[in-house]
Amino acid sequence: MLITLTSDMGLEDYYVAAIKGAIYNQLPNVKVVDISHDIPPFDIVHASFVLKNTFKEFPKNTIHIIGVDAEKNQTNKHLIVKNYDQYFIGADNGIFSLIFDKKPDGIWNINRNTESENYSFPTKDIFVSIACHLARGGLPAVVGNEIQDIKSKQLFRPIVDMNTIKGMVGYIDKYGNLITNISKKIFNEVGKGKAFKIFLTKSEYSIEKIHQNYNEVVEGERIAIFGSGDFLEIAINKGVKGSGGGASQLFGISINDIITIEFKD
Amino acid sequence: MLITLTSDMGLEDYYVAAIKGAIYNQLPNVKVVDISHDIPPFDIVHASFVLKNTFKEFPKNTIHIIGVDAEKNQTNKHLIVKNYDQYFIGADNGIFSLIFDKKPDGIWNINRNTESENYSFPTKDIFVSIACHLARGGLPAVVGNEIQDIKSKQLFRPIVDMNTIKGMVGYIDKYGNLITNISKKIFNEVGKGKAFKIFLTKSEYSIEKIHQNYNEVVEGERIAIFGSGDFLEIAINKGVKGSGGGASQLFGISINDIITIEFKD
Amino acid sequence: MLITLTSDMGLEDYYVAAIKGAIYNQLPNVKVVDISHDIPPFDIVHASFVLKNTFKEFPKNTIHIIGVDAEKNQTNKHLIVKNYDQYFIGADNGIFSLIFDKKPDGIWNINRNTESENYSFPTKDIFVSIACHLARGGLPAVVGNEIQDIKSKQLFRPIVDMNTIKGMVGYIDKYGNLITNISKKIFNEVGKGKAFKIFLTKSEYSIEKIHQNYNEVVEGERIAIFGSGDFLEIAINKGVKGSGGGASQLFGISINDIITIEFKD
Repeated sequence: MLITLTSDMGLEDYYVAAIKGAIYNQLPNVKVVDISHDIPPFDIVHASFVLKNTFKEFPKNTIHIIGVDAEKNQTNKHLIVKNYDQYFIGADNGIFSLIFDKKPDGIWNINRNTESENYSFPTKDIFVSIACHLARGGLPAVVGNEIQDIKSKQLFRPIVDMNTIKGMVGYIDKYGNLITNISKKIFNEVGKGKAFKIFLTKSEYSIEKIHQNYNEVVEGERIAIFGSGDFLEIAINKGVKGSGGGASQLFGISINDIITIEFKD
Repeated sequence: MLITLTSDMGLEDYYVAAIKGAIYNQLPNVKVVDISHDIPPFDIVHASFVLKNTFKEFPKNTIHIIGVDAEKNQTNKHLIVKNYDQYFIGADNGIFSLIFDKKPDGIWNINRNTESENYSFPTKDIFVSIACHLARGGLPAVVGNEIQDIKSKQLFRPIVDMNTIKGMVGYIDKYGNLITNISKKIFNEVGKGKAFKIFLTKSEYSIEKIHQNYNEVVEGERIAIFGSGDFLEIAINKGVKGSGGGASQLFGISINDIITIEFKD
Repeated sequence: MLITLTSDMGLEDYYVAAIKGAIYNQLPNVKVVDISHDIPPFDIVHASFVLKNTFKEFPKNTIHIIGVDAEKNQTNKHLIVKNYDQYFIGADNGIFSLIFDKKPDGIWNINRNTESENYSFPTKDIFVSIACHLARGGLPAVVGNEIQDIKSKQLFRPIVDMNTIKGMVGYIDKYGNLITNISKKIFNEVGKGKAFKIFLTKSEYSIEKIHQNYNEVVEGERIAIFGSGDFLEIAINKGVKGSGGGASQLFGISINDIITIEFKD
């Protein structure tokens, strides 16, 4: 049985190790897999992007603990969400709606533990027990009340106007690659195979071809590909953020900047 | 069986992977868990804080390898320490006395291996064999001589003067939260439920309430809570070190700075 | 069965977790071990140094996935390399010749998967399946064609001139230790036990002794030892890169700088 951890806790403090110890203490034979602990603090958009591109790789019945912005408050309930035959445990801060492209198969509001109300470390003190309960084959209904909805948070979606798609950069990875919110599906629907130009705000360069692999252009050359999530990605082959060479730096592009695709009539 | 690793070796070099390979080579079925490899170099106080707040989460019989300041020298013996039904292996540089709140149940001075005296990488070349010996159920007395004492290193403890507790900041985590050396126990003993003010050196702010969860105050507000180690912690709700928002930066507070609590008569 | 991962992908994006999920999806009982994901981007010399000093610690039959500069192109085939009873999977960018000190026992050019040519993430989309095939006991010849050679890439080797060895710094670790390309073997062959002086370019200091352990000199003192790879290493005892104390900073030494050893006649 697999339990994954996603958090903004880093690895220099004791938090992540305490969570792992607590899991192994209950279930010595479970496998704990780190998704990432380097999520920028409280950044649920970044965390949702990482999870969205990861969870489908994992086997059925995998249990995902989400330790980002995990404090419960009046509007952020602690939830178990079931979708794609996997479980996700976290605070209802909007992240669930960002991870999934379809309505969850089940949502449970985790019951208050009346013995103690002092949970300053909910990922360890609450989510671990819930995850171990589920990993043992326990039902979510035993530890939560089924509810109907998760909090909805929408990211901008591309705008289509005749022969033009206006999207934006939603994520920049460690290589400085620009990952947009323009999917292969919308690109094909609007473009229907016509010639096109991709324009980057703040840059005079345009790109007129989609490649399959970075190495189809020479080192240092700009390239557009559909990345593994099937979203349009603008990159520099072997460019690297930080060394002055990544696409984000060369083009001066930040998260939320506009990417425009114009198809020829 | 679990073996944990705590070190200042980082993950960009080969050291940590060589240690893991060496363990799996001897014991393919053991589980190796990273506590942290991002301990600041040679910082046994940081390492002890991380271990102190972690080890009790782990199951009985867990074996902890401590690869921080691990070189043997004339005063730093290589030790096996047994406490709380777990084993700890490291150099006697003072760290053991910082991890535990009670005398160890057993201390063994690891025997010199007469075959080779060239151990420039003791965590791999010495501690791994010892850990595997223990993980197989071997007795510490087979590989070491029982001794009576560990080297003692004391951190400052809070000073109580009538209605005042003077403590200090002992650790600052990646969110910039200030973790003090003032325990809930001493707070309750001195305070007996009376009203109080917490003063931070170098800051004109005071805090007059202890909360249970960060989210009980609005974002950006200062808050005092007893953290998971039951030590008083001063934080900014959703403040983050590095973005100019963590408590350490907002209050200009560093490790070893004084925190004063004055209780009303 | 062990599968290790070495990459330059870092842990803040989804790449590494997607790889792990894909492996566990195929083989729930395999053990995935991170060698490092902090290899500098596309730096096959750094990656080869880390692997060279690690792989022999691992058990026989371990499978190593190398996700550094892993894109296939006209000259970089995707290979399975067998050596020392272990498998290595990666692109033939020269890294294999840097890892090994002997010719591989077998080399296979991984067959093109004709179903899809869109592999922008070969470490996950190609190497994982190959690794799982091998981990199940499958033969390399089933998924590749045996070939005779790997691409050769040579690093500078020390030059010996009478009583002098001229080597260079090949790697600087996180402590700032300078790891040279001068082996214990060549040192002993040329030196034959004679007195010597080690000179660092750009530094007026010399070192006249090889120690066994860092702690044989006082803190802050320079020291030469043969490190675990049996290569000459110049260090500052308890010096740390970044705090102004590591050997690289104190001596102003960078990768590729010359180290000279002069033996007395």
